[in-house]
Amino acid sequence: MQVIPPALEKLIDNLSRLPGIGRKTATRLALNILRKPQALAKDLADSLAVLHDSIQLCSCCFSFSDKDPCAICADPRRQADTLCVVEQSGDLLAIEKTDSFRGHYHILHGVISPMDGIGPEEIKIKELQARIQNGTIKEVIIATSSTVPGEVTASYLIDILEHAPIRLTRLACGIPMGMDIKYADRYTLAKAIQSRSLAK
Amino acid sequence: MQVIPPALEKLIDNLSRLPGIGRKTATRLALNILRKPQALAKDLADSLAVLHDSIQLCSCCFSFSDKDPCAICADPRRQADTLCVVEQSGDLLAIEKTDSFRGHYHILHGVISPMDGIGPEEIKIKELQARIQNGTIKEVIIATSSTVPGEVTASYLIDILEHAPIRLTRLACGIPMGMDIKYADRYTLAKAIQSRSLAK
Repeated sequence: MQVIPPALEKLIDNLSRLPGIGRKTATRLALNILRKPQALAKDLADSLAVLHDSIQLCSCCFSFSDKDPCAICADPRRQADTLCVVEQSGDLLAIEKTDSFRGHYHILHGVISPMDGIGPEEIKIKELQARIQNGTIKEVIIATSSTVPGEVTASYLIDILEHAPIRLTRLACGIPMGMDIKYADRYTLAKAIQSRSLAK
Repeated sequence: MQVIPPALEKLIDNLSRLPGIGRKTATRLALNILRKPQALAKDLADSLAVLHDSIQLCSCCFSFSDKDPCAICADPRRQADTLCVVEQSGDLLAIEKTDSFRGHYHILHGVISPMDGIGPEEIKIKELQARIQNGTIKEVIIATSSTVPGEVTASYLIDILEHAPIRLTRLACGIPMGMDIKYADRYTLAKAIQSRSLAK
């Protein structure tokens, strides 16, 4: 017996293909959309339909943008000599929110992960090398995550950029702000001890 | 009507005075103890009864120990010239678990917190100054938590130790190991950018 109408079933199927949304959540979302006025479903459908046509990759930093170059690459007030290399656009947004970086970005669109068949050629590393060869860049901040694939990617970048005439830096690893040290995991705490800095 | 016998009530009261244990948890623990053989309750009672008599503060580092000086202070293989200043004994245990610190400790037994009426005199700061004046200590690592009272205490220590002939360091603040940077809070991420280090 089919309890869920095919149209609803189809929406549930499609919603549950999104990351972090299982069948239960998808069903809840779909039923919620169904209960709300049709205009909401229509708006959502429209915004999904035009998404890929109106958003493209910036040809310089490879972030998603409706213009090319993107707003950050085109902004003359930002320091073009400092490049922050991140894995994904979400990382760019996180760093922008800190208000503590005024340089440009380079989005790799992935991490090196041999298990998933992703090598250096599959992500925007050649494009990064090309940007550096341009000569305007003085510092490259490797801001990949401190996860295993993030570290692998960082090591690879350090290897290939080691002899480039740039300052190559990494984000600090350590105790998160506001954290009681006895709740820090031992690896983070060990790293924080090794990387301790002069207090004054 | 009294449903809980007074003896049980008393145990629940006493258990719920422990940190992080509310009345519900206390009741669950008490009933669990009641269901188990009496020997467990007896052992627990005995260990509580002898606790304060058999454990004392090390007169050197002020950690809890059954000997004076404690095992760490008495160990000749540990570097006596490096002192790690922590808030509580729990922090010492967390750092010991990292296997990356081989020096001595100094337990402050609290943090400066004017709101709670705790000033520098209420914690073991004078004792720390006395240890430093001894002359054997070359580095003091301030390992207070990166919480507000932890930072206040660290600032105070930096102020009073600034002119001492020692290297004064702090634990690194930054992204925890294994964390995806887009999930880091903005203050931690901002700190990680400011404190970025040379990659090679």
